[in-house]
Amino acid sequence: MNFKIRCAAKEDCKDISRMIMDLAIYEKMPDQVKISHEELERDGFCQNPFFECLVAEVPEEHKSNEGFTVIGYALYFYTYSTWKGRAVYLEDLYVMSEFRGNGIGTALLSKVAEIGKKKQCVRLQLSVLNWNTPSRDFYAAKGAQDLTVTEGWHAIRFDGQNLDNLANEAPKD
Amino acid sequence: MNFKIRCAAKEDCKDISRMIMDLAIYEKMPDQVKISHEELERDGFCQNPFFECLVAEVPEEHKSNEGFTVIGYALYFYTYSTWKGRAVYLEDLYVMSEFRGNGIGTALLSKVAEIGKKKQCVRLQLSVLNWNTPSRDFYAAKGAQDLTVTEGWHAIRFDGQNLDNLANEAPKD
Repeated sequence: MNFKIRCAAKEDCKDISRMIMDLAIYEKMPDQVKISHEELERDGFCQNPFFECLVAEVPEEHKSNEGFTVIGYALYFYTYSTWKGRAVYLEDLYVMSEFRGNGIGTALLSKVAEIGKKKQCVRLQLSVLNWNTPSRDFYAAKGAQDLTVTEGWHAIRFDGQNLDNLANEAPKD
Repeated sequence: MNFKIRCAAKEDCKDISRMIMDLAIYEKMPDQVKISHEELERDGFCQNPFFECLVAEVPEEHKSNEGFTVIGYALYFYTYSTWKGRAVYLEDLYVMSEFRGNGIGTALLSKVAEIGKKKQCVRLQLSVLNWNTPSRDFYAAKGAQDLTVTEGWHAIRFDGQNLDNLANEAPKD
């Protein structure tokens, strides 16, 4: 299939927002999505953006059943390892179901790897859900390690009232 | 104990570098550290820094057995959730063993939470090793969730040759 990978523009945020919801439905947590396309525009297209994004686009003649030409995305940002240095973190990788099996997911993933390498990143990281074996198998087949299995890393989060409580404990300057 | 939390300056990178190694020894992976203080200076104190850092400092009269006054650090950066928006990620939190039990770790952690809140972050995330029960208990006592346990998230990584291979697969522009 004919498709193009390009950097997302501000105008793509409505498409990205639609696919973020699609991905959350796939991940069985659609009620968790609180982000609007306006927030994506604000946070991704400001002076020091909080993320970067690639989109996959098909020509008009291959548009989706519902009429979309932007049919996949990879949203990522830069992190830092105090052992190894610069890293790129892939927050989301998504291709609409009717376009899967055409190498679009691999193209998005490898493009993020290429962009990371250009920025001197030595790692590409991401998270997957335990039950999501198609994705776990996909990444493993490409050579990824599962650090939770091999090294025992757990993801820890503060949010809501617990984050507020923590911030309120901060020593005054 | 009398201590101060402040933003790290470029001149603190030697101290931070020393404590990064201390933390890696504690985490039983000292051979993993490849970062020099010069790289920290380059990556943390450039136009668009890859991380920010706080240090804990004690007065000269309370210096460590080896003569150090910078005795703890918290290194963090900003990430992004496509469900919830801006987040802050705590890469390292460390206090030299002879200074533990004085609330310095909590002060560093809560200061990162406060800084995150000021940047409109709705989450503070971090990773801990499975066997590191003192740290897991510390974060849990402060109200953190363990997402690997509750939601089943695994950390996945590409590096070395696998990252190179991935980048080499990227479609040409």
